[in-house]
Amino acid sequence: MKFCSECAHPVELLVPEGDNRPRYVCAQCATIHYQNPKMVIGSIPIWEEAGEVAVLLCRRAIEPRYGKWTLPGGFMENNETTWAAAIRETQEESGADVELRTLFALLNVPQVHQVHMFYLARLKNLDFCAGEESLEVRLFNHADIPWDELAFPTIRKTLKFFFEDYAKVQAGDGDYGFHTHDIIKRQNRPDF
Amino acid sequence: MKFCSECAHPVELLVPEGDNRPRYVCAQCATIHYQNPKMVIGSIPIWEEAGEVAVLLCRRAIEPRYGKWTLPGGFMENNETTWAAAIRETQEESGADVELRTLFALLNVPQVHQVHMFYLARLKNLDFCAGEESLEVRLFNHADIPWDELAFPTIRKTLKFFFEDYAKVQAGDGDYGFHTHDIIKRQNRPDF
Repeated sequence: MKFCSECAHPVELLVPEGDNRPRYVCAQCATIHYQNPKMVIGSIPIWEEAGEVAVLLCRRAIEPRYGKWTLPGGFMENNETTWAAAIRETQEESGADVELRTLFALLNVPQVHQVHMFYLARLKNLDFCAGEESLEVRLFNHADIPWDELAFPTIRKTLKFFFEDYAKVQAGDGDYGFHTHDIIKRQNRPDF
Repeated sequence: MKFCSECAHPVELLVPEGDNRPRYVCAQCATIHYQNPKMVIGSIPIWEEAGEVAVLLCRRAIEPRYGKWTLPGGFMENNETTWAAAIRETQEESGADVELRTLFALLNVPQVHQVHMFYLARLKNLDFCAGEESLEVRLFNHADIPWDELAFPTIRKTLKFFFEDYAKVQAGDGDYGFHTHDIIKRQNRPDF
């Protein structure tokens, strides 16, 4: 941020009176430009048939992580709820109609100022197709999940949580939980 | 938003190519200025003694809702996690040291582009005091909660969820859950 979005005057990075951290402040109109984390919301679309569960993944047609696999998801928009964002992003990226269940995972990614959330979701049918931001969309059984080709650590962790809970549910040993986790950047990785 | 924060040129509100909703776009440098919901994170600081539970509330020293009671909370900052935000905001507003338990409630407030989250928290001691944004801070038993003097519907709903779960836990009939809820604005109320 270089200029005030209200009056076009250059901004300065300083700690406003009564505050305790640097903000972009306009020296002309005194507007303080706060910057806050964003929410990335998605779903875990599942299809159960013949005693097996499959999860719908999308192969990214955009950067970052072009060509890698991800759960459908994206930035939450103003004027919508977390669950509406999950349904919209799933529809946009995979063409899939889902019935949302509960909020399943919340993952902090502080180094990129993001919080990722994923809802459990049931595919209503198999009429899915790649949206503009996906190269392809397909169902994966547990054994076929491309663990080394996943786009982000939040996807990997959410899928791990899901299959752990799924095994418990199948064994009659509990229900799906709500999971929280922090992704902390490792020094030798250029991106999280 | 009137001017581009990158080059100071006036912005236009238009639907960018490949997008489906209006954004502020710079006609000079082509930067798209996305606007997204913010997270307000807080805690439900509890103190249990002699078989009774009390919740710490803060009376607001700032607008909106000056003079009304709230749970400690505020906007999540960049570079922090949801739980770190809950601890920081609790400390800033009430001076209280808390030990966080689980994430207890997530409430959508789409009309103001916010998602509110509250963690269950145990007060480590009774050394609390009003921070700069609070007029006073005190413990309330269930019977004394100032229901008609609460600052926001998300506070009211979170406290309702808490006392319902607390009653269940006391009756040996379950544990604290994770609750989600949407606050939908009523037409005849000027603020939510």
